[in-house]
Amino acid sequence: MKILYLVPGPMSRGEMGRKEVERRREVLQSMAFPGTEVSIRDVADGPPSIESAYDELMAVPATLDGIMQAEKDGFDAVIIGCFGDPGLEAARELVSIPVIGPGESSLLLAAGLGHRFSVVTILDNVIASQEHQAHKAGVLDKLASVEAIGIPVLDLMRDRERTLQGVIEAGRRAIEQRRADTLMLGCMTLSFMGIGAEASNVLGVPVLEANAVALKAAEAQVSIGISHSPLAFPRPPKLPVPNTPEVVS
Amino acid sequence: MKILYLVPGPMSRGEMGRKEVERRREVLQSMAFPGTEVSIRDVADGPPSIESAYDELMAVPATLDGIMQAEKDGFDAVIIGCFGDPGLEAARELVSIPVIGPGESSLLLAAGLGHRFSVVTILDNVIASQEHQAHKAGVLDKLASVEAIGIPVLDLMRDRERTLQGVIEAGRRAIEQRRADTLMLGCMTLSFMGIGAEASNVLGVPVLEANAVALKAAEAQVSIGISHSPLAFPRPPKLPVPNTPEVVS
Amino acid sequence: MKILYLVPGPMSRGEMGRKEVERRREVLQSMAFPGTEVSIRDVADGPPSIESAYDELMAVPATLDGIMQAEKDGFDAVIIGCFGDPGLEAARELVSIPVIGPGESSLLLAAGLGHRFSVVTILDNVIASQEHQAHKAGVLDKLASVEAIGIPVLDLMRDRERTLQGVIEAGRRAIEQRRADTLMLGCMTLSFMGIGAEASNVLGVPVLEANAVALKAAEAQVSIGISHSPLAFPRPPKLPVPNTPEVVS
Amino acid sequence: MKILYLVPGPMSRGEMGRKEVERRREVLQSMAFPGTEVSIRDVADGPPSIESAYDELMAVPATLDGIMQAEKDGFDAVIIGCFGDPGLEAARELVSIPVIGPGESSLLLAAGLGHRFSVVTILDNVIASQEHQAHKAGVLDKLASVEAIGIPVLDLMRDRERTLQGVIEAGRRAIEQRRADTLMLGCMTLSFMGIGAEASNVLGVPVLEANAVALKAAEAQVSIGISHSPLAFPRPPKLPVPNTPEVVS
Amino acid sequence: MKILYLVPGPMSRGEMGRKEVERRREVLQSMAFPGTEVSIRDVADGPPSIESAYDELMAVPATLDGIMQAEKDGFDAVIIGCFGDPGLEAARELVSIPVIGPGESSLLLAAGLGHRFSVVTILDNVIASQEHQAHKAGVLDKLASVEAIGIPVLDLMRDRERTLQGVIEAGRRAIEQRRADTLMLGCMTLSFMGIGAEASNVLGVPVLEANAVALKAAEAQVSIGISHSPLAFPRPPKLPVPNTPEVVS
Amino acid sequence: MKILYLVPGPMSRGEMGRKEVERRREVLQSMAFPGTEVSIRDVADGPPSIESAYDELMAVPATLDGIMQAEKDGFDAVIIGCFGDPGLEAARELVSIPVIGPGESSLLLAAGLGHRFSVVTILDNVIASQEHQAHKAGVLDKLASVEAIGIPVLDLMRDRERTLQGVIEAGRRAIEQRRADTLMLGCMTLSFMGIGAEASNVLGVPVLEANAVALKAAEAQVSIGISHSPLAFPRPPKLPVPNTPEVVS
Repeated sequence: MKILYLVPGPMSRGEMGRKEVERRREVLQSMAFPGTEVSIRDVADGPPSIESAYDELMAVPATLDGIMQAEKDGFDAVIIGCFGDPGLEAARELVSIPVIGPGESSLLLAAGLGHRFSVVTILDNVIASQEHQAHKAGVLDKLASVEAIGIPVLDLMRDRERTLQGVIEAGRRAIEQRRADTLMLGCMTLSFMGIGAEASNVLGVPVLEANAVALKAAEAQVSIGISHSPLAFPRPPKLPVPNTPEVVS
Repeated sequence: MKILYLVPGPMSRGEMGRKEVERRREVLQSMAFPGTEVSIRDVADGPPSIESAYDELMAVPATLDGIMQAEKDGFDAVIIGCFGDPGLEAARELVSIPVIGPGESSLLLAAGLGHRFSVVTILDNVIASQEHQAHKAGVLDKLASVEAIGIPVLDLMRDRERTLQGVIEAGRRAIEQRRADTLMLGCMTLSFMGIGAEASNVLGVPVLEANAVALKAAEAQVSIGISHSPLAFPRPPKLPVPNTPEVVS
Repeated sequence: MKILYLVPGPMSRGEMGRKEVERRREVLQSMAFPGTEVSIRDVADGPPSIESAYDELMAVPATLDGIMQAEKDGFDAVIIGCFGDPGLEAARELVSIPVIGPGESSLLLAAGLGHRFSVVTILDNVIASQEHQAHKAGVLDKLASVEAIGIPVLDLMRDRERTLQGVIEAGRRAIEQRRADTLMLGCMTLSFMGIGAEASNVLGVPVLEANAVALKAAEAQVSIGISHSPLAFPRPPKLPVPNTPEVVS
Repeated sequence: MKILYLVPGPMSRGEMGRKEVERRREVLQSMAFPGTEVSIRDVADGPPSIESAYDELMAVPATLDGIMQAEKDGFDAVIIGCFGDPGLEAARELVSIPVIGPGESSLLLAAGLGHRFSVVTILDNVIASQEHQAHKAGVLDKLASVEAIGIPVLDLMRDRERTLQGVIEAGRRAIEQRRADTLMLGCMTLSFMGIGAEASNVLGVPVLEANAVALKAAEAQVSIGISHSPLAFPRPPKLPVPNTPEVVS
Repeated sequence: MKILYLVPGPMSRGEMGRKEVERRREVLQSMAFPGTEVSIRDVADGPPSIESAYDELMAVPATLDGIMQAEKDGFDAVIIGCFGDPGLEAARELVSIPVIGPGESSLLLAAGLGHRFSVVTILDNVIASQEHQAHKAGVLDKLASVEAIGIPVLDLMRDRERTLQGVIEAGRRAIEQRRADTLMLGCMTLSFMGIGAEASNVLGVPVLEANAVALKAAEAQVSIGISHSPLAFPRPPKLPVPNTPEVVS
Repeated sequence: MKILYLVPGPMSRGEMGRKEVERRREVLQSMAFPGTEVSIRDVADGPPSIESAYDELMAVPATLDGIMQAEKDGFDAVIIGCFGDPGLEAARELVSIPVIGPGESSLLLAAGLGHRFSVVTILDNVIASQEHQAHKAGVLDKLASVEAIGIPVLDLMRDRERTLQGVIEAGRRAIEQRRADTLMLGCMTLSFMGIGAEASNVLGVPVLEANAVALKAAEAQVSIGISHSPLAFPRPPKLPVPNTPEVVS
């Protein structure tokens, strides 16, 4: 199967650059099942990182274009490369292939690993919107907390050790003060740093990396021929009907 | 990876017999990713089918033994072969490999496919307990309804057409009267009948088969090295410490 | 005080045209308290009407520009002219003047008029997103239902009587089948048609028009010197600090 | 429009006296829109202040009389002058003009200013009942906490500085420990002390004064011709039908 | 033990008269455990029956007096003789003996008999307030519905058969349309008519009579020396401290 | 009436022995109403104490046998002698006499004594499952917390003072940090130690002992002829119909 990981921002032209884009593809490919081919694209337009509701909404138009293009190009599923899942519902209105939100996927996987989970995220700015994600995913009852480490996206990779310590401290806070028993990294850059296993060893609880979780969700849906419900995400009335409307099953 | 599907009842010695047990293994194997080897076992003791809280609880002791044995035998994950997930929490207290409940997995996948889902199940008897499952899974907010088709487990396979029609009627009820946009088959025997795609084509919404969903959940967790939280499911105080306690990450 | 009603789409260049834009301003001005001056603007870019998640998100970038401009131009408050409140949180991150969402305002007013309210809206497409609005507003517990009349936005004004009858039927359904005791019109075009009082007389319950409600919310907040919480909607990290940062109280 | 602020206790004959009653009228009048005329009355009978469920219920009979009289006297709306909204539902059964509860109004306004709000109130005694108010208003999901400052009503005005400091400390507790982003003063005497803006400046979040909020709610409802739902608050079966029953719209 | 059943209205001077008051005492006495002595009192003042929020609040002052008197007179517990539990919280602030609300007690007992219960009550007027009772009792999650039979309190006893049929029809509605599995009679006059067993036989589910349930709750609390929490219902600040304050355990 | 207290483990053959079994019967008998005869039995098989989901499920089969036998032997009600209520739903499917779960009964009684209650239990292991009990009982909204004292069941009676202090500390934590106003002892061995009154005197809130509460619940249900709903707990399809099926009312 062919899966596209779509970065909802112009990463290849930014500070991180094309090299980081390619590195992310390789990380994903290395985690894939045999037979899965992972591609990666970023979009031409939008904020360099997503750290506010404003960033998130500004990233959407180009991302939706990229998702429609992915379906036309024959991808079997597309992953929106941001934990905030920008444009997820709208994307599902536009295409019938699975559109995977790493945030949603991680929240749903975590709900099956314990009783209460916490999201370890970047900045206080995004706490409320990640709580709202948990409501949309339907698992708000199990959300123990969202804990921010206080490091902006573009600084995360500058000092791996500092970031790892921030994650461990935030995770410990979630465990000790909010009774979390399961954690997830609430940011894709964080998830791609390869710190989940270390944090998990120190903290003694699962620490989900959203990139791996999203890939597995995409592979699972394609493998069993399932996608989002067309009744839940009906095609917008003002779009032309696609050439080959197929029943999603 | 090696995955065990454990039937929590003496199916091979019952009406369905060893042939049906083997058929189920083949169905699962056919849906697996390359590199996954599916085994199947049933347990020596317990009710012939699970259609009440009584049945479910009577199935647990032998099932827990089977799960502990599976870990000793080197399986990477075990699937409890009943939508009711009998003994799920207890099993997770006992082993560190992933223990997959098909009910829990299906509820969590469905939560990511739409806004409201319904379970199409066998008898009225199990409605309340499946509602409790949705609470335990953390997705009660998205449960539109549990709809029973009124056919006991052991009769489901006697008349495929009648069963399919029952599923379609129950599904339509869920869609039209309860605004469900996504469905799942709330019984393993139902899930192994190969009727999901047909029902989905007729109803125009995804219809999850719990066997496929559980297999994908097992493969995903093993693939990314994640299992349930040892903090959420601590080892019972009165069990001997296992020989090789490993940190689950 | 000076209040801007910002239409989040190019209404003046579309079918409805500049005349309808001006008419709406006059309607709002006629409902204002003495001393309130209502202006109206639309945005240059975006979908002609908002009837899906896709439409809503495509409307946001131009709308956010319009809101930032409104603050620079000295308006005391701005109303986003769409019941779906597109970009509400992001807008509040960007400016310190009150940003009024007619949907949010109507949901909160309705919560104070009875025990259970329903939204009478246009198409099934928007039901799920209006339910999410109720969650975001914090009043999901009182939402009896969202009822669609099945008429697209751009057809509402073509046949006033048909639209009114649609509202009455949907309202009656909400009252009789979902025990709603209060209604609101969940679309701005619907709200500007002057049918609320008629529907209310027929149905015997309050029928809120979102334009009036939003105007009163804006006037109230300006009058008592209150705006949204800067702690809830912090300024995005990657925006320049404004010239005159003022404490919102 | 004519709005009556009805003090649900014999304030003019108590410690605070007629002068404080008149001062409160002036405060309200000064906050009103042009064209609004604010009157004030207290009731002959009841507890000197409301600090328990007992006080609240003892205040009700005289308050309900006062509200019925207000409608007969031609007032367009009446505000119950106590944050606890004593007798609110019963009053709405008795009259068709808007009956404004300052508690309910403040809770609903706060829900639109941020994600989580706290009530800063007088004594621990009233915490549980203010939590019930939030449930009745429908916004319990957004209530971060009720924080008491530990000063009885009749002592609040004796030492303005001590009261202000109490509010600031309680507000800081709410912000830091309960993640509140918006505050309200949960007592009318507190609201009439003119300390909201100071507390807001220190704490950096909106601090609602319930008197202002209630006045704006009354003005808004009268201005757009809306009142509570007669379906939600039906006339008690054992009262005589009023002379001029009018459809509320 | 000595238990007082306090009718919160002037029943002995009304239509039902002293004979009905005495009959109710005899019914209660006949249901009591050996050693329990049941007394009955009504209050001098208040509405003849309680069918609205207005009635309920007007009944409170005299009822609270009666409850304080009951404690002074040495009763071990007092039952408020109205399903709406008028003044329950306030009464608990005033006395340390158990104050039993028949509504609260019935809701809590029903929660232990099944998964979903309905209240069969008199008039639509009280539905919303009985839903609030379920919230206050903490069992709103299990409330399937409140169903009204449409007969005013004072007419219930005029035609026993009509009332019984009304209860059966309302109960059937609750079972078939709302999935209730347990019922309660939501009115004391209804509960004293001796129709619960008949309705239960016809409907095949438990039908709780609130008088019996309240009596058993009173006997249970007195028997094990438990009463309401003084921390939850603290003595009102403006009441004199009683002569013999005792720690409630 | 005849009530059986059924210990769901082989207590008489374990460390505590037959003497403790008999002592528990005497404690219960001493708390019973006149006319109640309390018997006690334990089961032949199962774990020595219940401190995990694993223990709980292993205790069920023998317990269900004991409950069916109790009905055959003419008992009027049976109490499952474990706070976790092992097998409660299944037992109710099997018999029509009341089956009392001490956990459920205590949760429901506590809900009527205050606004928020906490469970003081033995080990962290059982917290999640006791939270789930509160959900099943329907009173999760009022659960302030479950607090563990960290002493295994079989050690509780070794050092009464240490256990009492543990309860007081845990209770104080619940009161001060979680705003609990009512407590219950979440373990039968703890409940039989006679420490509730002491803890209550120190803490100033009710402290429920689950044995007393369960006995009163059993006596109440038998006294008024009520049992669980046969619609909620239907007889399992695969059990033989009993000889004398009686309508439960």
